[in-house]
Amino acid sequence: MKSIRTLKEKKDTAILLIHCPDRQGILATVTEFLNRNNGNIIYLDQHVDRQEMTFYMRVEWELEGFTIPRDKIGDYFATLIAVPLEMTWKLFFSEEVQRMALFVSEMPHCLFDILSRYTAGEWDVEIPLVVSNHRRLEPVAQRFNIPFHHFPLTPENKAAQEAAELELLAAQRIDFVVLARYMQILSPAFISRYPNRIINIHHSFLPAFAGARPYHAAHQRGVKIIGATSHYVNGELDAGPIIEQDVTRCSHVDTVENLVRKGRDLEKIVLSQAVFKHLQHKVLVYRNRTVVFN
Amino acid sequence: MKSIRTLKEKKDTAILLIHCPDRQGILATVTEFLNRNNGNIIYLDQHVDRQEMTFYMRVEWELEGFTIPRDKIGDYFATLIAVPLEMTWKLFFSEEVQRMALFVSEMPHCLFDILSRYTAGEWDVEIPLVVSNHRRLEPVAQRFNIPFHHFPLTPENKAAQEAAELELLAAQRIDFVVLARYMQILSPAFISRYPNRIINIHHSFLPAFAGARPYHAAHQRGVKIIGATSHYVNGELDAGPIIEQDVTRCSHVDTVENLVRKGRDLEKIVLSQAVFKHLQHKVLVYRNRTVVFN
Amino acid sequence: MKSIRTLKEKKDTAILLIHCPDRQGILATVTEFLNRNNGNIIYLDQHVDRQEMTFYMRVEWELEGFTIPRDKIGDYFATLIAVPLEMTWKLFFSEEVQRMALFVSEMPHCLFDILSRYTAGEWDVEIPLVVSNHRRLEPVAQRFNIPFHHFPLTPENKAAQEAAELELLAAQRIDFVVLARYMQILSPAFISRYPNRIINIHHSFLPAFAGARPYHAAHQRGVKIIGATSHYVNGELDAGPIIEQDVTRCSHVDTVENLVRKGRDLEKIVLSQAVFKHLQHKVLVYRNRTVVFN
Amino acid sequence: MKSIRTLKEKKDTAILLIHCPDRQGILATVTEFLNRNNGNIIYLDQHVDRQEMTFYMRVEWELEGFTIPRDKIGDYFATLIAVPLEMTWKLFFSEEVQRMALFVSEMPHCLFDILSRYTAGEWDVEIPLVVSNHRRLEPVAQRFNIPFHHFPLTPENKAAQEAAELELLAAQRIDFVVLARYMQILSPAFISRYPNRIINIHHSFLPAFAGARPYHAAHQRGVKIIGATSHYVNGELDAGPIIEQDVTRCSHVDTVENLVRKGRDLEKIVLSQAVFKHLQHKVLVYRNRTVVFN
Repeated sequence: MKSIRTLKEKKDTAILLIHCPDRQGILATVTEFLNRNNGNIIYLDQHVDRQEMTFYMRVEWELEGFTIPRDKIGDYFATLIAVPLEMTWKLFFSEEVQRMALFVSEMPHCLFDILSRYTAGEWDVEIPLVVSNHRRLEPVAQRFNIPFHHFPLTPENKAAQEAAELELLAAQRIDFVVLARYMQILSPAFISRYPNRIINIHHSFLPAFAGARPYHAAHQRGVKIIGATSHYVNGELDAGPIIEQDVTRCSHVDTVENLVRKGRDLEKIVLSQAVFKHLQHKVLVYRNRTVVFN
Repeated sequence: MKSIRTLKEKKDTAILLIHCPDRQGILATVTEFLNRNNGNIIYLDQHVDRQEMTFYMRVEWELEGFTIPRDKIGDYFATLIAVPLEMTWKLFFSEEVQRMALFVSEMPHCLFDILSRYTAGEWDVEIPLVVSNHRRLEPVAQRFNIPFHHFPLTPENKAAQEAAELELLAAQRIDFVVLARYMQILSPAFISRYPNRIINIHHSFLPAFAGARPYHAAHQRGVKIIGATSHYVNGELDAGPIIEQDVTRCSHVDTVENLVRKGRDLEKIVLSQAVFKHLQHKVLVYRNRTVVFN
Repeated sequence: MKSIRTLKEKKDTAILLIHCPDRQGILATVTEFLNRNNGNIIYLDQHVDRQEMTFYMRVEWELEGFTIPRDKIGDYFATLIAVPLEMTWKLFFSEEVQRMALFVSEMPHCLFDILSRYTAGEWDVEIPLVVSNHRRLEPVAQRFNIPFHHFPLTPENKAAQEAAELELLAAQRIDFVVLARYMQILSPAFISRYPNRIINIHHSFLPAFAGARPYHAAHQRGVKIIGATSHYVNGELDAGPIIEQDVTRCSHVDTVENLVRKGRDLEKIVLSQAVFKHLQHKVLVYRNRTVVFN
Repeated sequence: MKSIRTLKEKKDTAILLIHCPDRQGILATVTEFLNRNNGNIIYLDQHVDRQEMTFYMRVEWELEGFTIPRDKIGDYFATLIAVPLEMTWKLFFSEEVQRMALFVSEMPHCLFDILSRYTAGEWDVEIPLVVSNHRRLEPVAQRFNIPFHHFPLTPENKAAQEAAELELLAAQRIDFVVLARYMQILSPAFISRYPNRIINIHHSFLPAFAGARPYHAAHQRGVKIIGATSHYVNGELDAGPIIEQDVTRCSHVDTVENLVRKGRDLEKIVLSQAVFKHLQHKVLVYRNRTVVFN
């Protein structure tokens, strides 16, 4: 598509995501470190889980004027702050545009929603490829000018196909994977290559109705509200850390088909909201739960 | 409490709740029967489940001017309409004020909400008694002038105490029972005496987190939304027909204690909304699901 | 786009939308008329506004086996039922696929959402054209293979351009118009050609923040919830009959830019839900309000 | 009522609410000040409005072990931190239980909800009095053992009665006032005595339907969602800083009476949530908007 994409000019910033055992003075130490080196903080959010005695933080500051060179920030921070305070941390730079792979099967609504946002410039991301076990959505990817890779799957070829997919992702320097209604279960081997970097959308309000055919199960149970859940994929089916959930009302007049239709709108919005949070480095995973900064 | 209760003057009406196999002309047959006998319909709602091929209906009409005497309506309707059309039906009269028993344990928020509505005249109901396995809420019942009956429970005395409770309910001509955070499991024998006439509030978005300590489980799972569910009690724990559900957002900043606090507001509103629907004869149970008319 | 569109096979049905002064027996009369002529009713919903003493109804039945020929149904119904009962009514046939015109300006999110649903086969509709006062979204329309018509507007040429637009709509036999973030005010002359057949999306929870820049106004007022409203366009700005509304939470941390971003998701879903209701002939306008059947 | 009130044992803490022009290092300065004096921070939340260049903060720390004596904290903080950084600030101590006055007229639902929470020990507050311009709710206050003061109002006696009310509030050392559906407009003179310390509940989603009879107006406009808004009272009707809002769906089937009934549940929950936030010193007013900390 001839691009209508015009991203907002963004500032050149660094982002730290941190968690560590809580103790007095962590916040003062980190902010003082940034201030002393002339880092203008433009975002700071922190949370203390007092039950777990764990401190969580996301801080973002402008690199312009910051006295520590970009390629040394990690070293300095590790030595001066992170090691003494036993921190687990990640450092990101806003200029590094992330690369996302999309996995789909036959339902197009999440794919359309993501490619529309991408094309409209809502997200600062690259999408170098769409992977599918079917050919049905190839025309969608083509018209948004995204290369489409078909990996048909059988029980026999699954290991080989996943290996080929991983090779493709590596060659394309993919940072994270979005399962946009991808109706296959990834192997533990695949998942372990992208820990907390594969985002799935499940079409129910988890943990209710995990597994197959959740709308049928919801109809059968007679619930008055249905939902959708986006989560990171871990080794256990539909049990990874939840990033975002949303719900909508239903009633006795809704057939399964109606629930599927209402659910589509939930699924695409919930998935896209989770992807947007991930893109902003605002999701921190700890003990199978997420801290999602504002 | 000196009464501030002033119920709206209500019309003298009859209400039919019907379900039957769907076929052509049911609606016309019923409405024609009422019209022919000069019944002014003031409420009509119907639903056809086309998968189950089942017809559901709630119709309410004024008794003033209706040519069939009140005490013969059931007979006439059965003979002329219900038997030929294989209907399951119930007939209610608005002048018959229902009698509700409240079962509580130690948490007062649902009890306060129900007794406040009762005292304020929001509901047209009688509440002749509160039953509890604890004494803690006795002062609440007393100050609303509702007789409080204490049935302490042990594994040994449970059968005998339930028998005594049933006797009390029968003596008080109780129509239905509301479990307002009653933390005991009723025996199948007890439940079978009030089929689809015992309303419970469960402090989760069922079927997620059935059973004990749902807020702890929700916190552990890291959900982003919590809920509450009111349902009729059947023999299976937290598995009866759902009447009403509602939810509210939570996040990583919410401790279990916060979830409990937020949940209290959900629980009391969801339970009271379910009771209100039941009082209006707007809930029809079919195959462990409910039709809840508007 | 190579089509991935596969619409569900639909039944050949007729749909009546009715409103009239309430009186005894309307429902029986209509359903009996359909039953007597062997019409299998597959949808019926009705509502009585007892304050206005007005009866509203939507009924849908299968044409297969119906004894009145399709092209005589209107005549028969008018003569036998509608005239005696003083009904205002419309008759639709499911086989008549409606034709929708899309008007846009520069924001693509609603356009993408609608064209995605169209392409995915969610809606049974034809979209023969996109009209815009800008060229920015031309590539979007092109890639979905929808003819794009550019009508640049100035205060001087507005009347002439609107006349040209109306001519185009007439030539294309357009049934209704969707303003998908079209940032121009249509003239009364234009609106009068499509009464209750122009659907707009306003980016606020009307009647709050009518007019320009509602997100700025919402931010200024410090609201804790923002919304979006789809409505039929009448002569008065943002004051037409409301079809659908939805809201989402915001807080002090949300900048105007955040509100705009959150609002986009609301706007596209609310507009599409309103269009879907309209497509199903489930919206009935009466005294600047809507009855929206389930 | 014989008390069932058992408040959780609470820690002895100090709370600072701060806003000031944003600049580098504020957060570090404040947290370092607390850490240096051995203050164990148990809550910290901050927000920077980058458009207004204003910094907002709520911090709470344990007094046990804090090296500055309680009665000198204000002095020290002012001299060492607040004056140099041009801060506006307030200091609170958790041991100082706030005293709340309730103003009501004839509708009991908000009064019941607040007194129920008070009696159940949900809130750490004292309620020494209920004021009303009617006698209708006197029995409610009596049964919760709260002194009831009747101030009948006429246009002629309003100034005198307000003066008497203010005298009563002063004598009772009232910290803040809650208008729990109080249907009188307070004079500017009254309001100026409790700036941002009078909380009102308005029965609409403000700014829509300010003023009288909002449910009638909502019905007339045909909205699909109704709401309630709690806000601080300032001199302008229904225009003060918003603390909390919530909404619920409605439809064409809802009469004005239904809207009133649904609205009651919204009103009482929204008002109580606002009061709870205020009690925790989590609401900060700035330029007619609120920062509401989590």
